[in-house]
Amino acid sequence: MDLNAGCEITFEVTAPTPMVLMLRPRSGYAQWVSQERYTLNPQVPAIEYVDSYGNLCQRLVAPIGSFVVSTRAGVQVADMIDVQPGAPFTPVQDLPDNVLQFLLPSRYCQSDQLGKLALEIVENTAPGYDQVAAIEAWIHTNIEYRYGVSDASTAARETAEGRIGVCRDFADLGVALARSLSIPARFVVGYLYQLDPMDLHAWFEAYVGGRWYTFDATQASPRGGRIAYGRDAADVALATQFGPATLTNLRVWVEQMTG
Amino acid sequence: MDLNAGCEITFEVTAPTPMVLMLRPRSGYAQWVSQERYTLNPQVPAIEYVDSYGNLCQRLVAPIGSFVVSTRAGVQVADMIDVQPGAPFTPVQDLPDNVLQFLLPSRYCQSDQLGKLALEIVENTAPGYDQVAAIEAWIHTNIEYRYGVSDASTAARETAEGRIGVCRDFADLGVALARSLSIPARFVVGYLYQLDPMDLHAWFEAYVGGRWYTFDATQASPRGGRIAYGRDAADVALATQFGPATLTNLRVWVEQMTG
Amino acid sequence: MDLNAGCEITFEVTAPTPMVLMLRPRSGYAQWVSQERYTLNPQVPAIEYVDSYGNLCQRLVAPIGSFVVSTRAGVQVADMIDVQPGAPFTPVQDLPDNVLQFLLPSRYCQSDQLGKLALEIVENTAPGYDQVAAIEAWIHTNIEYRYGVSDASTAARETAEGRIGVCRDFADLGVALARSLSIPARFVVGYLYQLDPMDLHAWFEAYVGGRWYTFDATQASPRGGRIAYGRDAADVALATQFGPATLTNLRVWVEQMTG
Amino acid sequence: MDLNAGCEITFEVTAPTPMVLMLRPRSGYAQWVSQERYTLNPQVPAIEYVDSYGNLCQRLVAPIGSFVVSTRAGVQVADMIDVQPGAPFTPVQDLPDNVLQFLLPSRYCQSDQLGKLALEIVENTAPGYDQVAAIEAWIHTNIEYRYGVSDASTAARETAEGRIGVCRDFADLGVALARSLSIPARFVVGYLYQLDPMDLHAWFEAYVGGRWYTFDATQASPRGGRIAYGRDAADVALATQFGPATLTNLRVWVEQMTG
Repeated sequence: MDLNAGCEITFEVTAPTPMVLMLRPRSGYAQWVSQERYTLNPQVPAIEYVDSYGNLCQRLVAPIGSFVVSTRAGVQVADMIDVQPGAPFTPVQDLPDNVLQFLLPSRYCQSDQLGKLALEIVENTAPGYDQVAAIEAWIHTNIEYRYGVSDASTAARETAEGRIGVCRDFADLGVALARSLSIPARFVVGYLYQLDPMDLHAWFEAYVGGRWYTFDATQASPRGGRIAYGRDAADVALATQFGPATLTNLRVWVEQMTG
Repeated sequence: MDLNAGCEITFEVTAPTPMVLMLRPRSGYAQWVSQERYTLNPQVPAIEYVDSYGNLCQRLVAPIGSFVVSTRAGVQVADMIDVQPGAPFTPVQDLPDNVLQFLLPSRYCQSDQLGKLALEIVENTAPGYDQVAAIEAWIHTNIEYRYGVSDASTAARETAEGRIGVCRDFADLGVALARSLSIPARFVVGYLYQLDPMDLHAWFEAYVGGRWYTFDATQASPRGGRIAYGRDAADVALATQFGPATLTNLRVWVEQMTG
Repeated sequence: MDLNAGCEITFEVTAPTPMVLMLRPRSGYAQWVSQERYTLNPQVPAIEYVDSYGNLCQRLVAPIGSFVVSTRAGVQVADMIDVQPGAPFTPVQDLPDNVLQFLLPSRYCQSDQLGKLALEIVENTAPGYDQVAAIEAWIHTNIEYRYGVSDASTAARETAEGRIGVCRDFADLGVALARSLSIPARFVVGYLYQLDPMDLHAWFEAYVGGRWYTFDATQASPRGGRIAYGRDAADVALATQFGPATLTNLRVWVEQMTG
Repeated sequence: MDLNAGCEITFEVTAPTPMVLMLRPRSGYAQWVSQERYTLNPQVPAIEYVDSYGNLCQRLVAPIGSFVVSTRAGVQVADMIDVQPGAPFTPVQDLPDNVLQFLLPSRYCQSDQLGKLALEIVENTAPGYDQVAAIEAWIHTNIEYRYGVSDASTAARETAEGRIGVCRDFADLGVALARSLSIPARFVVGYLYQLDPMDLHAWFEAYVGGRWYTFDATQASPRGGRIAYGRDAADVALATQFGPATLTNLRVWVEQMTG
């Protein structure tokens, strides 16, 4: 399907503020960026680099006053995500080198502390894809989706205890639980079609059966476009700022383009 | 200035042909991609990766029949390229690690064989920027710009001997001569405003005074947008194909966008 | 000074266990590895790769039984670490691209939660090197160095609250506090001369005045050799194991070599 | 088998000369560096970095006078290289991203000009491993191994024409011919057991059947240790120098270590 997705972010800036934005989606597996628009208002110099996960990152200094970042992308994505029940656990020794980092604990994914819960969740489940699916189902059933309880410091362990969170918490928890079973997992941010209420979205991918598969504990059949990958939410903030800039407005839209 | 640049490439394909395209410009120093469009017709699966120079590369298999690749970019670039007469030679020991590779000879830049010519050209010139400017001027004066004489196998040494070439030959020669003086140089492909006749263009950059500067032996004051960097023309072909695909049409345009 | 440093690690392995070891030091700034020895007993196939921080990582599957890893390095290091009181804060917009990742919170460095403490510590201190030195001094004064209280799940926030820890906790806390001031900081593991009791050691580096400087809240004048860098302790475990292997013995030595 | 290999290189330096050395072998597939020694005399500051091929590179400024670089490595390597007649051609669309660069022509491997010769050599040969074996055999039979005819500017096309060369020419030609058939190939430098006369050695690897295989047109059954990989000889010079340093002595040894 063809999606037209975008967002407009407004900051009120009271002193020049360095920022790293991560808002330019890349073409990749089952995703082709056919159109794109990215404007800064006022227009300031910006540099782009590729981080260690392959994300395109935009560096700039936001000027005093209102600063508006607008991006829009036309993205061709698969109608359905790939699912593969029964795909086996990939032994650690067979993982590609650059996948190994996604086994380590990270800021919001204390996989070192969630092994017991993970083992309970996957009891009697075949190692691999089915374990991750069991984790996804467990989160979906046991964690209440509610705004306003978690915040930027909430990590997977807290979500496992509090049983409440938003999409980013669901994803951090899924990542942490998968990693505690020695299954590489990474955090994904992007656009989701028919998300309600509309917002930027987060989900996760797990490496089983020799490749990455998509999982989303908030949705039955997610269809969307990826913007960035990371170890967890810390790596893929839409904007990481180093100064007094307040995000005053965020508008997101995802529409299906018709022929 | 704001440029609207693009190209449309038509291949006639007689058997499925793997291709690597390098047609998606990136934002970077003094260049911001504010709009972009990239379509494949027919639409086939494509994957994008970042090569070792930081270029976005599109992999696909072109299907039998007519295959049309269209790209278009809105790019904000500086009105004038940076020039810095007198910028000193950067000693090799002070070069960043990832710049060192641009000192080595490469397919079309036999810098190991052009040292004598380079020394003649830069005689009595201060080491650094002025040497590269002297090389640029020498090429401009001594190499005839003519289509149809050089081809895909022509390298800098042949251009230095034959004294004829097109923009890619001018750039390969500039790169080779700079490197023979231990000045890092890299090949750039991109769009040039008011190029006549319009086509994709090639120029080069040299690392002096602690940063990269743009040089173009074909133009007095080049204004354009970069698509890709490489050691020489071999690294940045707009399309590298591995099968029977014939490029039957290439249309390029570069226009100034007005407010 | 020339150090002869090494370690011998014994694992008892009850089932074949994939491991990633990080025990081969690299030459780098103010450190030259002149001799090295690295043996596995029993000798099993091992592959080495470079992770995203530039560390050499050894992958292998530890076999059932006793598995002994021995490494030894002759390393030439500076007699004194570089210190530079007054070195200024490097503005975020001037940081090299690959340094930016060391501003983000990570598993053991919840910099997003330690800003208040950091501001108290550095009150009236000039931005930059002196702030990091104040953090180092504060940790040295306020955190008790004691074995057996913290464990592999202890992170900077817990150390700041409990006021007890070992070298790795001191380093994680230093990293977290520096990052909360927008100063990039990274975790270092290595060998320390005259550490008592002898063990592997951890400290940190902060990026101020345009380069990395060494800080160690446990030592007055640390002299040692680096083995690996990371965001925090999670990235640089000497051994990350994925199976039932018990570390039963760890012997470390660091001696000064004499001419 | 266990090899003890090393070299000692003496330069006479008449002005301080920046150098990049590539003399530290890395552990990797079927190769484990168990011991190593690397000394500079006089001892000067040196920095090490990893280039885009994963090689460890040592940067330094050689001082005026005699400058001696000595390296020695104990390397565990397979008794026999892997051979796999019949291993199929890997379609270009199935190659890993980072292998694609080894399909491009390079300084000493004008694969764009050797397609006709390659097709003659592999006539009636199954695509893949057997083609590369045919190339290896053809070079072995048709190129005379002789010192003193080729030099640092000799590339594959010249070797194909002149029919004379040394190991580096054999390897460059093998690489170029393989690439012209869309088989990725890379140049390897290293130590060879029982090479006569003893010297540093060069051979090549080709990617077929989903992995890299070793080929050496100079030897029936090569056994040795790799030091570095590159596109061709230009990338892996044992020393790349930028000033007046003369290599006055090179001593190389490779011995089998006995239990």
